[in-house]
Amino acid sequence: MAEPNILISEVGPRDGLQNINTIMPTADKKRWIQAQAEAGVREIEVGSFVPAKLMPQLADTAELVKFSKTIDGLSVAVLVPNLRGAKDAVACGVDKMSIPLSVSETHSQRNLNRTHDQMIKEIRSIADMVRQLPVEGRPHFEVGLSTAFGCSIEGVIDESKVLRLAERALEAGCDEIGLSDTTGYGNPTQVKRLVRSVKQAVGHNNLTGVHLHNTYGLGLANTLAALEEGIVTIDSSLGGLGGCPAAPGASGNIVTEDLVFMLQAMGLTTGIDLSLLLRVRDILTEALPKETLYGFLPNAGLPEGFVTV
Amino acid sequence: MAEPNILISEVGPRDGLQNINTIMPTADKKRWIQAQAEAGVREIEVGSFVPAKLMPQLADTAELVKFSKTIDGLSVAVLVPNLRGAKDAVACGVDKMSIPLSVSETHSQRNLNRTHDQMIKEIRSIADMVRQLPVEGRPHFEVGLSTAFGCSIEGVIDESKVLRLAERALEAGCDEIGLSDTTGYGNPTQVKRLVRSVKQAVGHNNLTGVHLHNTYGLGLANTLAALEEGIVTIDSSLGGLGGCPAAPGASGNIVTEDLVFMLQAMGLTTGIDLSLLLRVRDILTEALPKETLYGFLPNAGLPEGFVTV
Repeated sequence: MAEPNILISEVGPRDGLQNINTIMPTADKKRWIQAQAEAGVREIEVGSFVPAKLMPQLADTAELVKFSKTIDGLSVAVLVPNLRGAKDAVACGVDKMSIPLSVSETHSQRNLNRTHDQMIKEIRSIADMVRQLPVEGRPHFEVGLSTAFGCSIEGVIDESKVLRLAERALEAGCDEIGLSDTTGYGNPTQVKRLVRSVKQAVGHNNLTGVHLHNTYGLGLANTLAALEEGIVTIDSSLGGLGGCPAAPGASGNIVTEDLVFMLQAMGLTTGIDLSLLLRVRDILTEALPKETLYGFLPNAGLPEGFVTV
Repeated sequence: MAEPNILISEVGPRDGLQNINTIMPTADKKRWIQAQAEAGVREIEVGSFVPAKLMPQLADTAELVKFSKTIDGLSVAVLVPNLRGAKDAVACGVDKMSIPLSVSETHSQRNLNRTHDQMIKEIRSIADMVRQLPVEGRPHFEVGLSTAFGCSIEGVIDESKVLRLAERALEAGCDEIGLSDTTGYGNPTQVKRLVRSVKQAVGHNNLTGVHLHNTYGLGLANTLAALEEGIVTIDSSLGGLGGCPAAPGASGNIVTEDLVFMLQAMGLTTGIDLSLLLRVRDILTEALPKETLYGFLPNAGLPEGFVTV
């Protein structure tokens, strides 16, 4: 198989599970992570270092990080809401950690109870802490600009705000910026324009990934737009689990199965075996019988003559 | 409102209704057509001139054409399977008629019981018949190349076959070629490549429209790809009704509501008022209570701050 040119970052164990009421047993999460890594997924966001009382669904994140680190070649990612979470993440040896910075300040206050200035200060503290670690084993520290394409509270988000926050986050010392369409409001024209502008503002290599939602069914069209602007890392969730609890009406990440199908059909490589990936879904069906799983490919079945790797 | 730059061709009353078991009463179809035209949809495929015993769902096509012709500014389109149907269509005064020509000969034989040579002969007869009509009121005659992006029986469809049939259909005298992704197998890279190749082979103005299915959830991404290659007419179906009975596993046109949302969000104009369009859906819900309607926008609701016209 050719060297993969697109990195699929599976966020289901974090973004998916935090938005459903069922608490998935740790053993099932491990089976999921293991199977998905075996299907060729090279990065998985396994949890979030938030207080267990706020998000009991993700209380086993430390254990999952330790487990996932035993899987050869897997980049183990987590979400961190603040310095304290970042320290916990570092202690577990994560490969990557992301902090959400909502461009909508209203959303930032509702989601993490912090203003932009407070968030930038937190980002700086985390960056300083990371910089004091030995170079080897230092995790990649990303700031995910959430609500970058629109907010269900504030509505339209001015693009100059996104650019300014991207610059401030990098000045504060993070390694990279990501753009998140928390509400699914983004459209392909906007995705192209914003990716291009942010890359111009902060440098091509400081924006390589997007986190898109499929609330309006535009997730894959927006992915296409992002790819055309040089984005190479795409977040998605197996079965489309997930959403954003602080943005009313926003639901559903891009479905990993459909995303990988589109990319491979287009001749791009992800390193993922689509037949194996489709079987991972069975683990979710068994472990989360009450949850709805999404996706077109799983219902339609692979096209006649389609090559899955 | 600016002059619309994209034509949405609503195919639900034909492609949608032919693939469900319920027969929609003629009065409800008229309400649907009327309401959708009032929402700003400028072209509607109202039915198909096939024998009523084969497709009782569309037996009222002649009546619907006559009714639709009374709606100011509406382009009234129908599907015709053969010369006989085309004569009926002309007698009713349609503005546009399309005949499907399946690039997969196996599919052509199963769907219309005809080989490619037989189909080209039929197309020539129709074109000859049209040419003898007075210029004023002569319908636009399109050949829709179905299974152009893949066939659920034959699998991969060689692009040279598509080009050759496009050329043959135009030589036989049709006014225009359309590309149909009957099975939903198409991907954005393929859509771009094929649209470009066909335009090169037959001339830019002889390919302006595509008919894409959403079987694999790639309908809108494929639309984006087509738009980027200069396509300006997009077929879609309200609530995503429809599919192809002769292609096993193929289901679902692009959802008109989601398509219009994407285009308008991108700053393209369709002439459609999205708020009014969403209300047309209620007619389907009432008239077809047993049928599933699809679409993301109808569930998510319009984004905060979105301008609907």
